[in-house]
Amino acid sequence: MRVDGVAYRTIWVDPADGWSVRIIDQTKLPWAMETPRLTEPGQMVHAIKSMQVRGAPLIGAAAAYGLALALRQDASTEAMESAAARLAGARPTAINLRWAITRMLTRLRNTAPSGRVAAAYAEAAAIADEDVAHCEAIGRHGAELITAAADGAPGRPVNVLTHCNAGWLATVDWGTALAPIYRAQEQGIDLHVWVDETRPRNQGAALTAWELGSHGVAHTVVADNAGGHLMQHGQVDLAIVGADRVTRAGDVANKVGTYLKALAARDNAVPFWVAVPGSTIDWTVSDGVAEIPIEERDTAEVTDITGRAADGTITTVRIAAAGSPAANPAFDVTPARLVTGLITERGRCDASAAGLAGLFPELA
Amino acid sequence: MRVDGVAYRTIWVDPADGWSVRIIDQTKLPWAMETPRLTEPGQMVHAIKSMQVRGAPLIGAAAAYGLALALRQDASTEAMESAAARLAGARPTAINLRWAITRMLTRLRNTAPSGRVAAAYAEAAAIADEDVAHCEAIGRHGAELITAAADGAPGRPVNVLTHCNAGWLATVDWGTALAPIYRAQEQGIDLHVWVDETRPRNQGAALTAWELGSHGVAHTVVADNAGGHLMQHGQVDLAIVGADRVTRAGDVANKVGTYLKALAARDNAVPFWVAVPGSTIDWTVSDGVAEIPIEERDTAEVTDITGRAADGTITTVRIAAAGSPAANPAFDVTPARLVTGLITERGRCDASAAGLAGLFPELA
Repeated sequence: MRVDGVAYRTIWVDPADGWSVRIIDQTKLPWAMETPRLTEPGQMVHAIKSMQVRGAPLIGAAAAYGLALALRQDASTEAMESAAARLAGARPTAINLRWAITRMLTRLRNTAPSGRVAAAYAEAAAIADEDVAHCEAIGRHGAELITAAADGAPGRPVNVLTHCNAGWLATVDWGTALAPIYRAQEQGIDLHVWVDETRPRNQGAALTAWELGSHGVAHTVVADNAGGHLMQHGQVDLAIVGADRVTRAGDVANKVGTYLKALAARDNAVPFWVAVPGSTIDWTVSDGVAEIPIEERDTAEVTDITGRAADGTITTVRIAAAGSPAANPAFDVTPARLVTGLITERGRCDASAAGLAGLFPELA
Repeated sequence: MRVDGVAYRTIWVDPADGWSVRIIDQTKLPWAMETPRLTEPGQMVHAIKSMQVRGAPLIGAAAAYGLALALRQDASTEAMESAAARLAGARPTAINLRWAITRMLTRLRNTAPSGRVAAAYAEAAAIADEDVAHCEAIGRHGAELITAAADGAPGRPVNVLTHCNAGWLATVDWGTALAPIYRAQEQGIDLHVWVDETRPRNQGAALTAWELGSHGVAHTVVADNAGGHLMQHGQVDLAIVGADRVTRAGDVANKVGTYLKALAARDNAVPFWVAVPGSTIDWTVSDGVAEIPIEERDTAEVTDITGRAADGTITTVRIAAAGSPAANPAFDVTPARLVTGLITERGRCDASAAGLAGLFPELA
């Protein structure tokens, strides 16, 4: 997507040398757009660990390129396996990270050391390109919903509400929940996005608002509390969110607060869609509320917040009363009964076992 | 209620001189507990305007004491009417403010100037004491709910969720939504409060957490997004919130985000109670969503936040992406169908026209 008119991906091989890897340092967003050049695998491990790159699909591609950088230093099998283990351990819970490393090793173990560097770059590029293709397809299938909403709302923008950041920053390009928005805007649909700020980490106010603004998409940041009021007053035509995991029955684990928006959507007959690549579906789990463990993160994310002070310095301030404890469940589960449907690279389906099996029969 | 073991009201006549008025400066909370001494009515106008005192019941008592201070300077009818108008205009939308001024004038117009100072202090004290009595009664009627929940949860604390600040800081003492909590704690009930931080102004994380902590009530601050997840997992026994306005049919206008918690409560069979003095019921309005205008506040409350930096300075930082617009609806309306019941100074009732008329037949 574009930043001030220039098209970017979140990760790419530097055309100046053909081998070093450039990323957008997301820890600096929304305050600064920096694209550091990574030349050795330790830098990529650090980038993943420190969340300079984040979002499941992007992390997978980053690990793949990290392995390519490692092979440039030493293409022996022993060094390759060691680098793969280091990369896979950078964020232990990220499923895509292990998936990408496994795919890389499957290809490279069958390749002679002399051919591994070229093969690794090719496979990493394939992983990145496939992610882009999947997200673009999600955008195509989701844009149809926005187009249909526009037909029902002549003379005014279609209002889409989203939560957290499931945009191109979380993928290689396009994003998941935001892909339909970018696609619809490309098609000339007049639209406007309500951006939940998404406490406590504020990925909505910081990242989603930044990427929409940079690409030129009309949007408004709101407190997470506001969505119900907006829906009660007809100001939301549809909601689209991403997911960290979808069960085989269609339950959706996503950033905490998603469930509250889904409840408000149902109470006001607002369609509530979840955009995910097929790789996000966990075919081993059925009941999301009962079975998906919810990560409890550092409570300082609730009691403290970082922003830009008037003098331009990035400053962290305490916002909760001194001494008050906090809790920080990072995700919640939206039961399938509240989800209008899923938008995948293969099309849309009901949030149900039958719906998912229809699109992914070989996996169900 | 207590602050570090010392009992306070939010406003009182200084016993050192018997006439100056002390308040807790709430603009300094939760970072500092300061109790400035006000000696002339202009200081009270400033205190109300700048939200050093806030909360409808407290503002009414503050205006009454402000008039008493004015009469000490000049007890003539002309000066009294002029001071009353200045005080009534300090926050034009606060219903209790005008109600208190009207009550004071009704008493004082029939009093000779020589007796007005004493009469004004007596009437202001009566207004304050009545508010305390109403809130204490709300506490008594609401504590029965917590006691009943404790009987159903032996061996663990009763978990109560609240939103925003409807505590003693918003009244003269006890509070509305928090009064049942203070009362139940006094009765020895083991309880714990989930405190919604309440973006964008963070009255939960700042004020509710401060007053609960200062009084020694166990509590945990959570992002507003977390309540649905907590309810899904049985971690909330009941919710109690306050209200800015209740319609004759039982619809509840309260701080934005209340509606989302009420939806989650219904979805998880968690009782959702609203604690209000009878003066909060607007007998002229029936359909809250359609009829109650919602204040749109400064969007800087969403894009910026104030807290305490590591060096102790109170600092405001920008948290949203630069240039992104925001919207800030300050309240929402929870339909009566989602409210388990109302807790008033006269007892509990259904959130319905029949329920309210049963408790307040002379007003219905």
